Amino acid sequence: MFYHAQKLINPIVADEPDPSAANALQEGLGGQFGEMRTMMQYLFQSFNFRGDGKAYHDLIQGIAIEEISHVELISKTISRLLDGAPEYHGKKFDVPGKGGAATMEMAKEQQNPHHFIVGAQGALPVDAAGNPWCGSYVHCNGNLILDLLDNLVLESTGRLQKCRIYQMSKNKTLRATVAFLIARDEAHEMAFAKALETLGVDWAKILPIPKFDSSKYPEVKKLIDAGINREQYHFRLDGSQMAAIFSGPAPANDGTELITLAEPKQSYPDPGAPERPEEFAPGLDPELQALADALVEVKVKIQKSAKESKE
Amino acid sequence: MFYHAQKLINPIVADEPDPSAANALQEGLGGQFGEMRTMMQYLFQSFNFRGDGKAYHDLIQGIAIEEISHVELISKTISRLLDGAPEYHGKKFDVPGKGGAATMEMAKEQQNPHHFIVGAQGALPVDAAGNPWCGSYVHCNGNLILDLLDNLVLESTGRLQKCRIYQMSKNKTLRATVAFLIARDEAHEMAFAKALETLGVDWAKILPIPKFDSSKYPEVKKLIDAGINREQYHFRLDGSQMAAIFSGPAPANDGTELITLAEPKQSYPDPGAPERPEEFAPGLDPELQALADALVEVKVKIQKSAKESKE
Amino acid sequence: MFYHAQKLINPIVADEPDPSAANALQEGLGGQFGEMRTMMQYLFQSFNFRGDGKAYHDLIQGIAIEEISHVELISKTISRLLDGAPEYHGKKFDVPGKGGAATMEMAKEQQNPHHFIVGAQGALPVDAAGNPWCGSYVHCNGNLILDLLDNLVLESTGRLQKCRIYQMSKNKTLRATVAFLIARDEAHEMAFAKALETLGVDWAKILPIPKFDSSKYPEVKKLIDAGINREQYHFRLDGSQMAAIFSGPAPANDGTELITLAEPKQSYPDPGAPERPEEFAPGLDPELQALADALVEVKVKIQKSAKESKE
Amino acid sequence: MFYHAQKLINPIVADEPDPSAANALQEGLGGQFGEMRTMMQYLFQSFNFRGDGKAYHDLIQGIAIEEISHVELISKTISRLLDGAPEYHGKKFDVPGKGGAATMEMAKEQQNPHHFIVGAQGALPVDAAGNPWCGSYVHCNGNLILDLLDNLVLESTGRLQKCRIYQMSKNKTLRATVAFLIARDEAHEMAFAKALETLGVDWAKILPIPKFDSSKYPEVKKLIDAGINREQYHFRLDGSQMAAIFSGPAPANDGTELITLAEPKQSYPDPGAPERPEEFAPGLDPELQALADALVEVKVKIQKSAKESKE
Amino acid sequence: MFYHAQKLINPIVADEPDPSAANALQEGLGGQFGEMRTMMQYLFQSFNFRGDGKAYHDLIQGIAIEEISHVELISKTISRLLDGAPEYHGKKFDVPGKGGAATMEMAKEQQNPHHFIVGAQGALPVDAAGNPWCGSYVHCNGNLILDLLDNLVLESTGRLQKCRIYQMSKNKTLRATVAFLIARDEAHEMAFAKALETLGVDWAKILPIPKFDSSKYPEVKKLIDAGINREQYHFRLDGSQMAAIFSGPAPANDGTELITLAEPKQSYPDPGAPERPEEFAPGLDPELQALADALVEVKVKIQKSAKESKE
Amino acid sequence: MFYHAQKLINPIVADEPDPSAANALQEGLGGQFGEMRTMMQYLFQSFNFRGDGKAYHDLIQGIAIEEISHVELISKTISRLLDGAPEYHGKKFDVPGKGGAATMEMAKEQQNPHHFIVGAQGALPVDAAGNPWCGSYVHCNGNLILDLLDNLVLESTGRLQKCRIYQMSKNKTLRATVAFLIARDEAHEMAFAKALETLGVDWAKILPIPKFDSSKYPEVKKLIDAGINREQYHFRLDGSQMAAIFSGPAPANDGTELITLAEPKQSYPDPGAPERPEEFAPGLDPELQALADALVEVKVKIQKSAKESKE
Repeated sequence: MFYHAQKLINPIVADEPDPSAANALQEGLGGQFGEMRTMMQYLFQSFNFRGDGKAYHDLIQGIAIEEISHVELISKTISRLLDGAPEYHGKKFDVPGKGGAATMEMAKEQQNPHHFIVGAQGALPVDAAGNPWCGSYVHCNGNLILDLLDNLVLESTGRLQKCRIYQMSKNKTLRATVAFLIARDEAHEMAFAKALETLGVDWAKILPIPKFDSSKYPEVKKLIDAGINREQYHFRLDGSQMAAIFSGPAPANDGTELITLAEPKQSYPDPGAPERPEEFAPGLDPELQALADALVEVKVKIQKSAKESKE
Repeated sequence: MFYHAQKLINPIVADEPDPSAANALQEGLGGQFGEMRTMMQYLFQSFNFRGDGKAYHDLIQGIAIEEISHVELISKTISRLLDGAPEYHGKKFDVPGKGGAATMEMAKEQQNPHHFIVGAQGALPVDAAGNPWCGSYVHCNGNLILDLLDNLVLESTGRLQKCRIYQMSKNKTLRATVAFLIARDEAHEMAFAKALETLGVDWAKILPIPKFDSSKYPEVKKLIDAGINREQYHFRLDGSQMAAIFSGPAPANDGTELITLAEPKQSYPDPGAPERPEEFAPGLDPELQALADALVEVKVKIQKSAKESKE
Repeated sequence: MFYHAQKLINPIVADEPDPSAANALQEGLGGQFGEMRTMMQYLFQSFNFRGDGKAYHDLIQGIAIEEISHVELISKTISRLLDGAPEYHGKKFDVPGKGGAATMEMAKEQQNPHHFIVGAQGALPVDAAGNPWCGSYVHCNGNLILDLLDNLVLESTGRLQKCRIYQMSKNKTLRATVAFLIARDEAHEMAFAKALETLGVDWAKILPIPKFDSSKYPEVKKLIDAGINREQYHFRLDGSQMAAIFSGPAPANDGTELITLAEPKQSYPDPGAPERPEEFAPGLDPELQALADALVEVKVKIQKSAKESKE
Repeated sequence: MFYHAQKLINPIVADEPDPSAANALQEGLGGQFGEMRTMMQYLFQSFNFRGDGKAYHDLIQGIAIEEISHVELISKTISRLLDGAPEYHGKKFDVPGKGGAATMEMAKEQQNPHHFIVGAQGALPVDAAGNPWCGSYVHCNGNLILDLLDNLVLESTGRLQKCRIYQMSKNKTLRATVAFLIARDEAHEMAFAKALETLGVDWAKILPIPKFDSSKYPEVKKLIDAGINREQYHFRLDGSQMAAIFSGPAPANDGTELITLAEPKQSYPDPGAPERPEEFAPGLDPELQALADALVEVKVKIQKSAKESKE
Repeated sequence: MFYHAQKLINPIVADEPDPSAANALQEGLGGQFGEMRTMMQYLFQSFNFRGDGKAYHDLIQGIAIEEISHVELISKTISRLLDGAPEYHGKKFDVPGKGGAATMEMAKEQQNPHHFIVGAQGALPVDAAGNPWCGSYVHCNGNLILDLLDNLVLESTGRLQKCRIYQMSKNKTLRATVAFLIARDEAHEMAFAKALETLGVDWAKILPIPKFDSSKYPEVKKLIDAGINREQYHFRLDGSQMAAIFSGPAPANDGTELITLAEPKQSYPDPGAPERPEEFAPGLDPELQALADALVEVKVKIQKSAKESKE
Repeated sequence: MFYHAQKLINPIVADEPDPSAANALQEGLGGQFGEMRTMMQYLFQSFNFRGDGKAYHDLIQGIAIEEISHVELISKTISRLLDGAPEYHGKKFDVPGKGGAATMEMAKEQQNPHHFIVGAQGALPVDAAGNPWCGSYVHCNGNLILDLLDNLVLESTGRLQKCRIYQMSKNKTLRATVAFLIARDEAHEMAFAKALETLGVDWAKILPIPKFDSSKYPEVKKLIDAGINREQYHFRLDGSQMAAIFSGPAPANDGTELITLAEPKQSYPDPGAPERPEEFAPGLDPELQALADALVEVKVKIQKSAKESKE
């Protein structure tokens, strides 16, 4: 059973909107190696888990739960990058629809016209080329060694693509989220590689993949300095055996140590998103808005007084 | 940010395996109107939510979180129905692979050969016709009224299809889960219909869809008697404004009342799943199994002693 | 602009339901070479037609219009074959859901579980393997010679597949519709081959494809004897230049002549379809049914009296 | 059985070509909520209709027939917007291929390279992101209330997306067609909402969706003033019971009345499309063109004399 | 540049036709981890190869070339299993179409109706659930370590699925081909694992995946005894540096040695396939057959005499 | 069984990188009528060939083998056009990633962001609109006449699209490869048309399709002058009966003759591709590179000495 708290796993850093950056980031959300895939793959692997390898189960499941929060983070980052997109790059676009102005130029800047026509300047379950996410991306073989190896490939490819996306844009909103995901993908690489280490594999010096010093990206460096790339969280309200695997020397064989925590040391406020009249979002006219407000208000009052009378 | 506890939202009721029932149930998991769709649709709607209609946001998000637990429940039900499938229907199939016996007959009984070849007798992210789940199923328009109406259609179609699936099989494992989902889909219909009621709509007598007395299904009756079809849970660790909408008379206009709770009154143990050697799942040979066991044991000891020495 | 009359282009012949036959026939409806493809391909070719080759345009468009009626005919044939499917083959299935009986066996006989769960025992826009119809099936190249040749291949493949489907089943409902489509596909082969003949091509003896005497199928023979395989209809309320091409010796070079008509000499009543309570179709409960009946009745009365008072 | 007349349901208004506008409009043709979907969804619902609710059947079917004419209109609008695209925006592109000039810049302006490479500057069965239309878009549940509600959502989403597309471009060719579709989608919203009203639902003030005064778009205003958004046509050559539902007060509850007509009061000429040599469309070389002309001419003469000799 | 010789890499062993076995084997051809994927993935990786790691390039490319021959072998095996399918299992089906008999029962035994309707009882580019092969299966990341690891996962999953398919059927035609592929997948696992070993990785005892003694399958044992699972062929007419990697101790760490050869020691005749009149395959009627025979004969004679006169 | 030699069927001509040209060329590789389709369609047709029409089989198969080399050629052309893409058009982009510079502008110039994020500036198995290649493109009907006609349409459409692509760009790298494919597609049109000619068809003057003088493209003229458009190669190491069909007057009826050869008269060196650090391709860091180099060196030495000691 799953639970939620309205806070984010990493902050949304403010910068100008940038619809092209948003579109590139869609690969990290709805791409074949994006967060929707990791989330669904690990959820299916944990739901279908066979045998009594509890520690392995808890490791896979813990990462699965984290990935839901990654889908949350990256969705909100994309929405933020798209939001107010018309003002992108030195206000080159006017307020969209102002005085009946056409928004095509803005929409073209968005690359995927669905961001304007379908998604109301919000994240979509598609990749950077506009292909919808597909169930066949999920690999769940039932064979533990193979699933671990497949997961290692998945995290490595995710990290490789995010390193490429990082280089594509200097937008701070994009880079903050991507840097966080690069650091976390590295932690997940460590997790699955460590699980295979328990079965005897020695990874020598090939990890992490891609093999390069990601601390040359300043946003990543800050996270590495804080140890984010060697921690794993289990997000379990009833405990976890994850630490039986995720502890001790990192399989990167670089002298670092793995640390299991219940959840990240910090969490961040959800910034919310403004109305966008040019998208009819949320699109209540004054009459309906008043109605909604009133009804909610009344009910809240009734509930309060009911509650008070009970007390 | 999301959390988890290793318990189920409804019990997995024991009965014989039944691979055809499992395949029909795939529609409820990976079909166009199945739980993966509801989960992703409501998650995207809550992540992309615009404006300050907090109560509406919390309603959509609360149901989104529940749907992850539905994906968990239905996945585990499918796996259970597939598991040991060879012994299906009066043991007509022998233990699969025993003495090198061929398992084709069993596999054919499974309808979708992927359940044996790809999924290791576990749930797959596909529908009952074998089509993989697709991102284009997710509707997230940004327009509040339209999203609520779309959600009402989604829940109604889900409930309609589950009522049909209920009738397809007498297997108790299938019926227990399907009955629960019928009752919960009805609650979700109430939720979205109620939200539209706050904007003035009067549903008269058309709800729930399909319009019939589902209490004629005994498994559903028990749940209705317990009030399951008029409750909604928010699953939020930090509170929710869901109750501002989900309270008062049900929009079915049948004299019932809606009740918001933090989480279901009861939860149920996860039964786990046995190894299946004919699927090489999990597929550790004795040597690797020993290695894994030993390493984990040692690490647990070390951790314990490290912990003790700290204390 | 399009118009309609509630009659069929060929009769639905009565026989027992047969869900497997229905599923095979789906290939002729939603398959890569089925009627949805021909309909959309020729519609797009006529909508995008360039230049002043009016006769060629009218030929393509006339066949396009006929294909909509083929989609109508084949859909209704599939629904008829599925309808009451439980009584298939010597009543081996009981009335579905009677006394709460499970319908799985019936559903399994249907091959594609979507026919029961999704389609309410009606036709679906999918092929015989359950794949949804896809826009990429439509070929519209703009180059006249190529489009005509592509259409000839399309009709030939359609006819080939229908000849195979004919042999799969002895069910009279299936065979009547398939025989009609075999004869019509042959007429369409003649149409596109004749259009290429006007540009100089001589087809010698290779037509129709597949090359065999389809009059050995008795249902086809009757249609050929009536000349159905050498007629083409333009279905235009405002005239057509189709006859400039579709006339004279058939390109099968077998001594037959092509004849253009405004529409088929005969048309047939639409048999309608009964309610199916086990599918909740149409699913109005007594209260709603009464309401609907009453409202409609009242309105009809009001309209009548309003009309009378006007006169 | 279907018929056709070579005239359009709304005029194609002249303006400069605009390939980006054409691409945005593809969403209205081949998108998940575009005209191909409405056409196929309502056709399937009418072909698979169960029970004796004749008025409901005729309502759904009447709109289905209209949608074929919408596919015709929007296809021809897209072709017009693409046609001569190189001269787009102040002749910034030269005649394509003139003197062997490369057309890449023009093709890039088209967003979807298929418009140049595959579609010969004509409409394609794809959406604005280039995804081909998919059969799974069609919802046909068999349950009348659910189908009506699904159709209401479909029309509302279609109208929402068209309102967004309207704002994207000032091109008159685009705006004339989109304005017409906005008005017609509103009529269709009324139709399905009214059908649900006969079953007791009261829509209060939430219709139409999106809820805003579309008469602020001048092209829409003209159509509303002419009553286009409250009329429905049945296009039936043999009468229809549609008016039993589509009459009386509009469910927008704004004092307007619904009116059923056999067909629109006006229709418009089809402008045709010129040859495009750079696309080899239609691509007959002088020799073949002569051949074609001659053969057709001869045949027309023969037919005439044959006809005369008969008379 | 590629070349071909008309011989097979493994013999097609004779047994009764078995359409269900053929369908299961489709997973090995057109499935996500089947031979079409391996062929295309390695071809793309070798075509896009960057840098001067010639030995790595030649290793990947050599396996790519072999995979084309695997696609050839498995296609011909599927065709053989389907061919004459009506006589499957003790002749329970009559000669198809004999005396106009319906072939539905046979077609149903085939699971995927496309084998009869579309493929003329031949192999199709689809998986065992009927999904067409998809370009997104191909992973080509450009990063050498990642590509090697991805390839190892691909071969391991392929081998796992083939081990499952082996167990599904006792048909000798199926088992001979599957056993060969199990042995070859193991060789390919060795190849990619060995390439990673050159970069320092030690695989301990986890290889091959799945980890079990496949020599308990007698058909596999014979191949292992012949050393098939430790050989790799480069199929290059101009030499290869493959042996720089594929030599020395196998990464299974079981004392075996890797051996590079130019091509397999043995090759096998292609059995060909008979005509199937019920499929209209090849479908020349006597007149056309005579024509074809005559024309070819004449031309062969002319060529001969021309050749002789030259000599 | 297949073989390979590391040389190309046409030279890669040097010019500036041009990512838009590369994207257009993707249609020729992974499009519905591109080289992956022709390769797989003819391979399947030859693998599933029925009956004893050996000459027809060898014709289809010979072209199939050539198509693999076309996939090789076009992949390498695309990679070359993408490679170093930042320096495209007068060096307008700086070295990507230099000093941490963002590469978004370059990536945007690439149209399909997957070329940068997923494909490491290499060819992808997708079309120009980014849709992945699909198994349903492959037509293999078993009926010889139909397959030949389908192949003729396929080659004609391929040639049409390549003529359009030729006009899109003046880049010499693109034009050299496209010109070669235009000439070869014409040869393949001749091949399939000639095969139908043996069955009596007379093509008059409609070939090749599109019907125009392609020698007005200078790059094509040079190839035509060399006779490339009337030759066909069988690429068989063990002989072929292809010449029985592919000889004598060309079905274009223009006085030219068809000539069968074992392989092209010339072949060309493979230029290779440089490392791209901004893509982490191949991405070995200095330590791993040294390791790899050393290991390979040592092994080569050992092999040499082992070989010498054997001699």
